[in-house]
Amino acid sequence: MTALLEPTTARQTVRVDLGERSYDILIGPGLVAAAGAEIARRLPGIRAMVVTDATVADLHLAALMTSLASAGIDATPLVLPAGEKTKSFERLEETVEAVIAARLERGDAVIALGGGVIGDLSGFVAGIVRRGMRFVQIPTSLLAQVDSSVGGKTGINSPQGKNLVGVFHQPALVLADTGVLDTLSRREFAAGYAEVVKYGLIDRPDFFAWLERHREAIFAGGPERAEAIAESCRAKAAVVAADEREDGARALLNLGHTFGHALEAACHYDSDRLVHGEGVAIGMALAHRFSVRLGLCNGQDAVRAERHLEAAGLPTRIDQIPGGGFPVAELMRGIGQDKKVSRGRLTFILTRGIGAAFVARDVDPAAVEAFLADELAHAAA
Amino acid sequence: MTALLEPTTARQTVRVDLGERSYDILIGPGLVAAAGAEIARRLPGIRAMVVTDATVADLHLAALMTSLASAGIDATPLVLPAGEKTKSFERLEETVEAVIAARLERGDAVIALGGGVIGDLSGFVAGIVRRGMRFVQIPTSLLAQVDSSVGGKTGINSPQGKNLVGVFHQPALVLADTGVLDTLSRREFAAGYAEVVKYGLIDRPDFFAWLERHREAIFAGGPERAEAIAESCRAKAAVVAADEREDGARALLNLGHTFGHALEAACHYDSDRLVHGEGVAIGMALAHRFSVRLGLCNGQDAVRAERHLEAAGLPTRIDQIPGGGFPVAELMRGIGQDKKVSRGRLTFILTRGIGAAFVARDVDPAAVEAFLADELAHAAA
Ligand SMILES: NC(=O)c1ccc[n+]([C@@H]2O[C@H](COP(=O)([O-])OP(=O)(O)OC[C@H]3O[C@@H](n4cnc5c(N)ncnc54)[C@H](O)[C@@H]3O)[C@@H](O)[C@H]2O)c1
Ligand SMILES: NC(=O)c1ccc[n+]([C@@H]2O[C@H](COP(=O)([O-])OP(=O)(O)OC[C@H]3O[C@@H](n4cnc5c(N)ncnc54)[C@H](O)[C@@H]3O)[C@@H](O)[C@H]2O)c1
Ligand SMILES: [Zn+2]
Ligand SMILES: [Zn+2]
Repeated sequence: MTALLEPTTARQTVRVDLGERSYDILIGPGLVAAAGAEIARRLPGIRAMVVTDATVADLHLAALMTSLASAGIDATPLVLPAGEKTKSFERLEETVEAVIAARLERGDAVIALGGGVIGDLSGFVAGIVRRGMRFVQIPTSLLAQVDSSVGGKTGINSPQGKNLVGVFHQPALVLADTGVLDTLSRREFAAGYAEVVKYGLIDRPDFFAWLERHREAIFAGGPERAEAIAESCRAKAAVVAADEREDGARALLNLGHTFGHALEAACHYDSDRLVHGEGVAIGMALAHRFSVRLGLCNGQDAVRAERHLEAAGLPTRIDQIPGGGFPVAELMRGIGQDKKVSRGRLTFILTRGIGAAFVARDVDPAAVEAFLADELAHAAA
Repeated sequence: MTALLEPTTARQTVRVDLGERSYDILIGPGLVAAAGAEIARRLPGIRAMVVTDATVADLHLAALMTSLASAGIDATPLVLPAGEKTKSFERLEETVEAVIAARLERGDAVIALGGGVIGDLSGFVAGIVRRGMRFVQIPTSLLAQVDSSVGGKTGINSPQGKNLVGVFHQPALVLADTGVLDTLSRREFAAGYAEVVKYGLIDRPDFFAWLERHREAIFAGGPERAEAIAESCRAKAAVVAADEREDGARALLNLGHTFGHALEAACHYDSDRLVHGEGVAIGMALAHRFSVRLGLCNGQDAVRAERHLEAAGLPTRIDQIPGGGFPVAELMRGIGQDKKVSRGRLTFILTRGIGAAFVARDVDPAAVEAFLADELAHAAA
């Protein structure tokens, strides 16, 4: 934790240790402009396709293409619509065919310039074209920088559920430019911040306390922002290195996500109503309150977690989602379809307090249902 | 080679050694009827989706479903059209959604009952639903038994080229029922036999000589058939174990395939004109003649390879493909788009004689072009 006390302006590097699939995450300002040089130095001779969305393209694509060109990297851009709907079979096929049409080879790269949507789709494409090409991530949302840039999960959504189709495919390099986050809306920044808070709540109580002190500076930019991102990447990398394929400890990263995914599904992934990080924020608050109800966690810790999320402008209750209308049965279906279901019993991430989350493998669906009914009744009252 | 001299009627097992991804291939008669028991014993408690094609469904699906049911395995069938066109994005999406709709979990299985088309598609589906489910192969064509059942390659075609999209996903178990091959057309049996011959031509001259003596018995059925399949699986497994991700020695398995794929593409994958194994047979003959022309291989060995393929009813020259019309430029484009291209130089599998194939990494495209022009001129003459 020493690093957290003395943030520096220098660029940080987090190494994700996965044997021959190990890679570096560079974190700091100016990395889009430096991308060409960094990529050319580490992956000499590659050609690339840059996949991005229309919003990010307007703001940052020109800078990236200039940087790649001046480093001598032959790259073709592909601009997709912004939004979760882009994680579809249709866009997958379109992007795959574009990469093949650009005659890229196995050693060439798909470069994702965008948030988690672009990262997940592009990583999947890189994982399946020619059974695996190189993948470079330039995450431009806070959420993508602290979450999807570590772990190698890629994929798309099915009409039947989120992230149900994909592969594990590790990037060769991640460039997290903290400066590009300045163009991100406050709402999207806060959504990403929910995942930062998550690492504190899982098993880093000191980090959580540091976040309580430095939240405003992180939102404003500056060295605390890079430090918060680096610590988040270290936190996730530590879990992933211990458990690359998500059978054991990695499940902890789902804190807030079982409830969160069910809420996202009930909103039909309508980002006007709820974005992923907001679902996670509500989900984490629910996980803490459910843990209190089960006698696992004391009430003060749950309140402390909620207060911090609220101070960051994040929702913590289902009734804060505009539009309403969440029948318990529908949420339970969402939870049942979640990847974490295993033969009838539910696996939930519960907690014994701030930084003391654990994997509960035998949660009674009836207890979850009763808890949700009370949460919704409280909202209606 | 002792095993080859004394074939037995007993079921054979070939172990594919890939560390924690190791699996068994069982080879022998009656394995469709025994599938339920074998799967239930090795993968207790699983549920499954059986993916097959309409032709195979008519002949063998009922027997498999009965076997699964009597072993207590809850399985849903999905019947797709027969033929190479089924290896498409459209069928991929359809199958993925069907597997999700059946509410199968990660530990459950996709069972492929069919030839290489069904195996490749189903394996890809198993590799991407929930980022990887179990996969059981029940290959019903000779080609699928001796080739696609070993190695973990899965995938679909792009309109721009064959097998350009997919993943490596190893099966948990392969059941190669030698009896189901009795319903295969002689043409399809011969096409699969081309891959059997390939293992002899790559690096098993004794196996090639054994095939020369036992070809008729293999086509007729009986213990020599199971032995030829087992030896083919051992040959491929040895290469794959040494090189799971296909960068080095595994390239040898492409003997005949660079030419073969170009011919298949030029025929627009029209199986009335050319099936995969026929393309490979012509491709192997071309590889031998090209090697003779380059002064690498003596003419007798090339003739011996051709004679054996012809005796099996396989084509060895481009002009044997009905419909004709193979401009050299089109074949060269097919070769250039092949996965084995690497920055302008061509990689080909050439040979110094029967069982002495090697990877040539620096083949001059002009030499290939001149050779093909002569082959086609010879045909026209
Ligand atoms: N692979 C993983 O491990 C992982 C982890 C967490 C989340 N995810 C996935 O990530 C997705 C959510 O990520 P997200 O929140 O980044 O979504 P997103 O990619 O949709 O980005 C959110 C919005 O911000 C915009 N945006 C991105 N960068 C910007 C910038 N610098 N300036 C201005 N606007 C910008 C985008 O255009 C988009 O409209 C979900 O699909 C989720 O499933 C994946
Ligand atoms: N994954 C790999 O490693 C690998 C290796 C080699 C080939 N392949 C792929 O395999 C495919 C070719 O395989 P294939 O030749 O088996 O094609 P296929 O699956 O199309 O089968 C050929 C035909 O035989 C029929 N058939 C299959 N079993 C039968 C049976 N027992 N009785 C009667 N009819 C039967 C099928 O319905 C089909 O019409 C190609 O797509 C090729 O790319 C993959
Ligand atoms: Zn998340
Ligand atoms: Zn083949």
